[in-house]
Amino acid sequence: MSDEGERVNSLVSLLKRRGIIFPAFSIHGGVAGLFDYGPVGARLLRKVQNQWREHWISKGNIVEIDSPTITPESVLKASGHVDAFNDHASECRSCNAIFRSDHLIESHHTNPDSLDSEELGMIISNNGIKCPSCGEQQWHQPRPMNLMFPTRIGATGGGRAAYMRPETAQGMFVTFPMIQRHFRNRLPFGAIQVGKGYRNEISPRQGMIRQREFNMAELEYFIDPEAVFENDLSNWNDTRFQFIPDPKGGDSETIEMMISDALDSNIIRHPVVAKFMAETYDFIVSIGADPSKIRFRQHESDEMAHYATDCWDLEMFGSYGWIECVGIAHRGCYDLEAHELATNSNELRAWREFSKPIEVEKMVASPISSIVGPTFRERAKDVGDALMSLDEMPTSFPFNLLLDDGTSVSIEENMVEVKQIHDMIRGEWFIPHVVEPAFGLDRIIWHLLDHGYEITEKEGEEYLILHLSENVAPYELVVLPLFEKDGMSEIAHQIRTKLISLSGINAYYDGSKSIGRRYARADEIGVPWAITIDYTTIEDGTITVRRRDDQSQIRISHDDLIQYVSTNSLNTLF
Amino acid sequence: MSDEGERVNSLVSLLKRRGIIFPAFSIHGGVAGLFDYGPVGARLLRKVQNQWREHWISKGNIVEIDSPTITPESVLKASGHVDAFNDHASECRSCNAIFRSDHLIESHHTNPDSLDSEELGMIISNNGIKCPSCGEQQWHQPRPMNLMFPTRIGATGGGRAAYMRPETAQGMFVTFPMIQRHFRNRLPFGAIQVGKGYRNEISPRQGMIRQREFNMAELEYFIDPEAVFENDLSNWNDTRFQFIPDPKGGDSETIEMMISDALDSNIIRHPVVAKFMAETYDFIVSIGADPSKIRFRQHESDEMAHYATDCWDLEMFGSYGWIECVGIAHRGCYDLEAHELATNSNELRAWREFSKPIEVEKMVASPISSIVGPTFRERAKDVGDALMSLDEMPTSFPFNLLLDDGTSVSIEENMVEVKQIHDMIRGEWFIPHVVEPAFGLDRIIWHLLDHGYEITEKEGEEYLILHLSENVAPYELVVLPLFEKDGMSEIAHQIRTKLISLSGINAYYDGSKSIGRRYARADEIGVPWAITIDYTTIEDGTITVRRRDDQSQIRISHDDLIQYVSTNSLNTLF
Repeated sequence: MSDEGERVNSLVSLLKRRGIIFPAFSIHGGVAGLFDYGPVGARLLRKVQNQWREHWISKGNIVEIDSPTITPESVLKASGHVDAFNDHASECRSCNAIFRSDHLIESHHTNPDSLDSEELGMIISNNGIKCPSCGEQQWHQPRPMNLMFPTRIGATGGGRAAYMRPETAQGMFVTFPMIQRHFRNRLPFGAIQVGKGYRNEISPRQGMIRQREFNMAELEYFIDPEAVFENDLSNWNDTRFQFIPDPKGGDSETIEMMISDALDSNIIRHPVVAKFMAETYDFIVSIGADPSKIRFRQHESDEMAHYATDCWDLEMFGSYGWIECVGIAHRGCYDLEAHELATNSNELRAWREFSKPIEVEKMVASPISSIVGPTFRERAKDVGDALMSLDEMPTSFPFNLLLDDGTSVSIEENMVEVKQIHDMIRGEWFIPHVVEPAFGLDRIIWHLLDHGYEITEKEGEEYLILHLSENVAPYELVVLPLFEKDGMSEIAHQIRTKLISLSGINAYYDGSKSIGRRYARADEIGVPWAITIDYTTIEDGTITVRRRDDQSQIRISHDDLIQYVSTNSLNTLF
Repeated sequence: MSDEGERVNSLVSLLKRRGIIFPAFSIHGGVAGLFDYGPVGARLLRKVQNQWREHWISKGNIVEIDSPTITPESVLKASGHVDAFNDHASECRSCNAIFRSDHLIESHHTNPDSLDSEELGMIISNNGIKCPSCGEQQWHQPRPMNLMFPTRIGATGGGRAAYMRPETAQGMFVTFPMIQRHFRNRLPFGAIQVGKGYRNEISPRQGMIRQREFNMAELEYFIDPEAVFENDLSNWNDTRFQFIPDPKGGDSETIEMMISDALDSNIIRHPVVAKFMAETYDFIVSIGADPSKIRFRQHESDEMAHYATDCWDLEMFGSYGWIECVGIAHRGCYDLEAHELATNSNELRAWREFSKPIEVEKMVASPISSIVGPTFRERAKDVGDALMSLDEMPTSFPFNLLLDDGTSVSIEENMVEVKQIHDMIRGEWFIPHVVEPAFGLDRIIWHLLDHGYEITEKEGEEYLILHLSENVAPYELVVLPLFEKDGMSEIAHQIRTKLISLSGINAYYDGSKSIGRRYARADEIGVPWAITIDYTTIEDGTITVRRRDDQSQIRISHDDLIQYVSTNSLNTLF
């Protein structure tokens, strides 16, 4: 096995052994693509989720919502998922095993994701691809398979067709009327959602990278496509980003530049996309990713999702190579328009006031009151309104005029005068555009673990350290009595109690086995700080603080400890 | 419509209008039993979830995990849900409408939940129950309908049967080996999970009370059934709880007593159940429920879930009457045993060390080395071990002896000597028992809203106030410039920025319409504090603080404001 393969296995085994992340339902034989976050991992997940929420909500015009995961078919028909959320599957005629067609030809095509059934079938047969299960070369033609988990709602008539949501985004689109009302109709604004997404993978692989049920976090940011965005990108003037722009048929090459230059040179096609790329980069680095293992890759035109007008992947590098972890897409008006078409809702548009009203000449069919009044009496006003709002002028008489209440009346030639009038148009309704950063949290967490995992040696034995950022480490501190006697244990418990009473601080007590074993156990799950209580503590109240990353130690009073922890500044002591 | 009905409608309309909670997918026609938490409601949900987590995790021996919602059939077959998670449905022969059979006869039986198909059918026919849709009296016989949402995992062979989880609890049972390892095998310990649960209701009603997808929060607390729990209940000596004990065939009556008395008099049957009932009560009150609208009702024996040995509902009173919001069940060893039976896993037990080892006499089939050695050579040790661990002594020879590696050998009479020996048994493996508090968060949130909703009058007009606890209010503060001019707007933005930089504090800025309108908008969504910036602020830096609950106001410096908010002590000023 390769060194890299051994390293992955060692990390995966640590994640399982220490209750971080492990395959789900294993006592029942397991299910590929489903994972549990255990007693240690669930805290890591929660902290990443909370950091993500804070990151966006602190912008001021972004709110969180929470929608159902069960989604009726009509919503996903409108969004395009029922027809287009597919992978191609190849079934072996000999052993009936099923594989993703694009995975079978990965070494024969640079972008197999973009091919259709026929192209995939051709490449499989031209290259004599063998079945990974049985070795035969007898394939059925690749066929598209929908990747949504189907279910049915209710009992009446066998129930109503539905799916587990493939993304959280549709929740924001279908509640757009509520979100717009919350912001009192003032674009731009955004809504986020943090929750489960589902994708019924044909053949899950690469561990946590390709799950069937995963933790998503998405922002849908609604903008007026005609608005001018003067986003200040100067915060990132000192950051060199790695970009792989759309090769447009040529080769992909990594270029390094400032984000503002990428926008100015039109590599990034929209200022809001550029801003969110930079914000996304900041978030990923703030939770502990290695900046040198982050790059942005632009989608090729034929690889873009069915709606996107500019789309970038934030890719992270790790044991599986470069992996897409965030997608930042300018979705245009695709989503809201699709739901408008499907539902005839009139609530999916925003109002744009013109800087000054536009004066127009227009033809109207004006009612002649002296005839319309006596003829229609109490309905005369409704008839007049209906005449005035006719888009096309009547060409023959009599004709049937539809009123607002659904009834109709017959209009004679003598009731109407067609004439030209002046009108003022103050604004217009339009479908907002959407820019969406969509995060796959499990993949990001995998890379935090991967980037932070160090296999080293101590006293001739393997020694494992997880260098997790303090911002996401499941426990900030561990409190260790040197021995569980002579009062050290009691002091340790007291200090732990004080620590966990501080907002956002988790600390655990560990008293069993040698102090070296306990440091090792804490290093393995990425605890940044170990506090040791020893005989000197009993004499003068000082404790030792050990830093995980370099295993250096200092001694301070335990009052100072509380102070430094509460201001999150232990690092300044070293 | 009744006053109560009007009040519910008014509250439901507020919840929708202000983006708190509303029926999901409404632009697509809606789906009964599915709801969205909107821009304001999602913060309420998050705060309730976080308070709940903190409440249990701070106990020290409880951890959070996060499991998949998609659950393979084998797990739910083992747990009993495939066979027993049913409601009875009655279908009308005339119009094909489907109803819950127990709902049809609610006014004809005190506990229709406990009846079987035949009993339900009898009561429906004896009482001439009419179809609520068409009025006819022609019913099919009630039949059990499984309430899980079905789905299929993967593509191979049509996929593998699975369901959306009906509870989060199974996640804790099937990961018990990991949880036990995390706690280094030291009972008692617990694991919590906060997430979605699914129940494919036959006919959802009562709005948020009966959802098809809902927010659950469950604790599974694992204990040694032989351990003695000396839980201190003296914290609750001043609290009178309302209990409705199992009537055992007689009438249900509410009694009021201390929790310790209920335990001592064996109304509550286990000390851990009593402790969790009290802790649950504390949680519900801490997030703002009205203590006079909380009671505990004990399940009757025939109503208890298929596993429970003592089960209490915490019921909350509101517009729909008394509603079960938390279930606190002693589940015995049912769950872990069920999974052990289904999987043969040997990891679902805990080890109990005897206080002193037990000396026993036992009969063994001891191998005679001089024969066994030469006969079986390198397998002699395995044969010897297998003989020594025989539970029953051989009665006839030769017999087939099964070895650990699955092979077997033939044993002759001259290879074995049956004799009595002394043995020391140091402990035993046992299946831990489980006590489970299971919370329906949406129902609890509904009751917080219901208890806090006040319809009052101001200047002759209806005035709405949501008295939400500061612990769960979506926004702690609103910052209001008296006018958006003369610098007041800038000061307001600065104060808001300072406020939201405080940990756990959310504040929004509102500048449009009259100050009275803005107070009203804030009162409607339960903002406890309104900060107003006026001309005096510009002169001397003081601001006014207005308290939602009594609309009283004081004036303090804005430095003091930050201080009081950061110590959560604004109330001490009034």
